[in-house]
Amino acid sequence: MNFPSKLIEDAVSEFEKLPGIGHKTALRLVLHLLKQQPQQAQQFVDAISRMRREVQYCRECHNISDADLCAICSGSKRNHKLVCVVENIRDVIAIESTQQYFGLYHVLGGVISPLEGIGPEKLQIDSLTRRIEANGIEEVIMALNPTVEGDTTIYYLSKKMEHLPVKITTLSRGVAFGAELEYTDDMTLARSISSRLPYENYLVQR
Amino acid sequence: MNFPSKLIEDAVSEFEKLPGIGHKTALRLVLHLLKQQPQQAQQFVDAISRMRREVQYCRECHNISDADLCAICSGSKRNHKLVCVVENIRDVIAIESTQQYFGLYHVLGGVISPLEGIGPEKLQIDSLTRRIEANGIEEVIMALNPTVEGDTTIYYLSKKMEHLPVKITTLSRGVAFGAELEYTDDMTLARSISSRLPYENYLVQR
Repeated sequence: MNFPSKLIEDAVSEFEKLPGIGHKTALRLVLHLLKQQPQQAQQFVDAISRMRREVQYCRECHNISDADLCAICSGSKRNHKLVCVVENIRDVIAIESTQQYFGLYHVLGGVISPLEGIGPEKLQIDSLTRRIEANGIEEVIMALNPTVEGDTTIYYLSKKMEHLPVKITTLSRGVAFGAELEYTDDMTLARSISSRLPYENYLVQR
Repeated sequence: MNFPSKLIEDAVSEFEKLPGIGHKTALRLVLHLLKQQPQQAQQFVDAISRMRREVQYCRECHNISDADLCAICSGSKRNHKLVCVVENIRDVIAIESTQQYFGLYHVLGGVISPLEGIGPEKLQIDSLTRRIEANGIEEVIMALNPTVEGDTTIYYLSKKMEHLPVKITTLSRGVAFGAELEYTDDMTLARSISSRLPYENYLVQR
């Protein structure tokens, strides 16, 4: 594509570096910003550079935070004996959005994946075992994605915690709400039958 | 969605204002920028604010430009007697990408659309007639989209130029290269038959 302006070309190529943004979309976004009032474009730029400059990671759970200790870790209404282990920040946001979980989190920063060169030493695992020992955590919920890498990581973590007096649980697997049995994969369907629940529990979950 | 950080929330809400960017995409883009090296995020922000601050509009054709007069208007290899009228900058980029057009442009900045409150006075029409008179333009190509608004604008412009010694042409309409007759709409197909070309012309176009 021939751009009539080097400035536009630079801005487009920066947008293109973002995931899922192609050439034409990048151009559309740049021309949109160009059409806005200068202060609106300035606001966009400011929000991003402030975010990049000032955002911190919680020293306890490694979640993003505006302070040294995040709002969840410093929350007085939270159950400080319960920790939910997740892969990344997006998972924290997803679980928080359910408004049904009141414990703390621990963000690993990834899962063990030899193919991508991610070994246990690259993840926040030591700080997890330290936290369990120091704070007397009673239960750790492994909320990792049901993939080979996720399961490997759960297995590794459970071995690491064997000597600690902590209960390890995982998310329940089964047919999703709103899903149709006909289109549910075999493994999930089989698991949902073998780990079937008394009807009273179903009503409570609902 | 509950964000663990106000900084992230602000950046996400700025990204969400861009066209075609929803809530989850905005979050993905922000977390991507957060994962990058600080200098890369800085580069992104700099390219956008420089673009917004420094970009100019060509005083002749209203195309975006890095200088007072754009590279096309000041090009010595361009045909300065031929002007192609387009709706916006994206159309200039599309036509330039064909590498088959060597005249100048005139960016209207929109088309006449009473529904959206865009009257002729909001478009760069006066400067077009001024240009034609001052520079002795010989032909004006109306390269507007084949919509009601586009056709209305072409009609309005042609009336405005009636008294000027300039030839007015429009883009040819017909079956697109690679299109199938079976799926071409009636109007286009009818037009492509009524304005059929001698075979020699077809070979040249190709």
